[in-house]
Amino acid sequence: MKLTSLVTQIRKKESFLCIGLDTDLEKIPSHLLAEDDPIFAFNKSIIDATHHLCVAYKPNIAFYEAYGIAGWKALEKTIAYLNKNHPDLFTIADAKRGDIGNTSGRYARAFFEELQFDAITVAPYMGKDSVEPFLAFSDKQTILLALTSNEGAFDYQTKLVEGRALYKQVLETSKTYKNAENLMYVVGATKAEYLKDIRKIVPESFLLVPGVGAQGGSLEAVCRYGMNKDVGLLINSSRGILYASTEKDFAEAAALKAAELQNRMAIELNKVR
Amino acid sequence: MKLTSLVTQIRKKESFLCIGLDTDLEKIPSHLLAEDDPIFAFNKSIIDATHHLCVAYKPNIAFYEAYGIAGWKALEKTIAYLNKNHPDLFTIADAKRGDIGNTSGRYARAFFEELQFDAITVAPYMGKDSVEPFLAFSDKQTILLALTSNEGAFDYQTKLVEGRALYKQVLETSKTYKNAENLMYVVGATKAEYLKDIRKIVPESFLLVPGVGAQGGSLEAVCRYGMNKDVGLLINSSRGILYASTEKDFAEAAALKAAELQNRMAIELNKVR
Repeated sequence: MKLTSLVTQIRKKESFLCIGLDTDLEKIPSHLLAEDDPIFAFNKSIIDATHHLCVAYKPNIAFYEAYGIAGWKALEKTIAYLNKNHPDLFTIADAKRGDIGNTSGRYARAFFEELQFDAITVAPYMGKDSVEPFLAFSDKQTILLALTSNEGAFDYQTKLVEGRALYKQVLETSKTYKNAENLMYVVGATKAEYLKDIRKIVPESFLLVPGVGAQGGSLEAVCRYGMNKDVGLLINSSRGILYASTEKDFAEAAALKAAELQNRMAIELNKVR
Repeated sequence: MKLTSLVTQIRKKESFLCIGLDTDLEKIPSHLLAEDDPIFAFNKSIIDATHHLCVAYKPNIAFYEAYGIAGWKALEKTIAYLNKNHPDLFTIADAKRGDIGNTSGRYARAFFEELQFDAITVAPYMGKDSVEPFLAFSDKQTILLALTSNEGAFDYQTKLVEGRALYKQVLETSKTYKNAENLMYVVGATKAEYLKDIRKIVPESFLLVPGVGAQGGSLEAVCRYGMNKDVGLLINSSRGILYASTEKDFAEAAALKAAELQNRMAIELNKVR
């Protein structure tokens, strides 16, 4: 998917919401457990109820791998369902992969070619040759971890490297990678005030922002510091939407939560019109 | 598996060889492609021919995920075959995973509980709460990336953070994590001279050392700088063993290459007796 299509979708839907499909058999409504594939049944219901309110879906691969082959099958069905029924939606494999060159190429093939995701999240620690094999796919986006939303972000990411924080070094260095125009970045909403500095380094790039909602980040603060002329933001919510209800009305409850976020996003978009 | 059992195996076999099962359908002998599951058929032949020469096997998960469900099935069969027939061998899922706390817990469950690997490789970028869910599994080892064998290692890992290289910061900080006694570290053989400094920070820990062979690292240099009183080293070789021959004699050829490495390891072990 071209980024221009994503921007068009955002303007049309007045939404830059990404819904994280972190589907957990211990949290989904119990009546779904009788289904052949409860994970896919849950995802399908969520997608059917929310696709008009968001522009992206982001399954976190850990939740699927935890169930082995059954999980992988549910992931395959979910991405196939999205690609068939909602080709306009941006799809992100939240995989946080990264390995030496030829091996990263394998992960790229797995998520871009086999599963046909539009984007994948990638960890930066192993540097250039671990990231470039993902960037080699034109029309695909590689979303590099910069500043994550968790406590552990302060272990290394905010430490000073040659006078500036490691996450800034990651942003700056990655701009020199081949096909860097295919890069996006993960920046946690729990650290919205950092966005001002981040925008000085990557003014044009799209940022994937987790941590709004359950993790405590503020949507409005993220917009204030992070929005650029093409919006440039995808704000993710997972648990807050997926598990809004654990009864039979879970999909409607999810849609209500998604609509609430979409409304707040529409207000932010209209502020800068 | 307890680390003491690994040390016992190393002494008994006079080997600290880990064989990387990076099985690539484009490189395995073509006659195997007619098999129902060519990946597993290849792995089984390699294991049958080499298990007496090594103490560990390390499938890199990228090579399996690249083939979707077929790949995941081959991985399941491989680890089940190892656990059934060679329970004394140490098994490492080379997955380089890492995510926020509850999500890392999912990966831990996938590789430790579902697949029953003894160990997994983990990326450090997201810090403490992304690593500790793996460490919570007693009798399992978490192998943190410190200094990798690729060129990209110089992008961030060797950069100075508060006066010392990031990889040293990773080693030092990780020692404060809960259940840190379950940590091992990845240190590339292509940077063997760094091992002297690394041993000052983690004198007791086991190091998983890739990059000997195809990537140009020296086994003898790694031993000189990295060996401790419990040996403390697992040296990995993948391509150099797996693809020693692409003909019908591939398993024998692999065993010859593994035996060559094992012989050199026996010499190193006897030097320090």
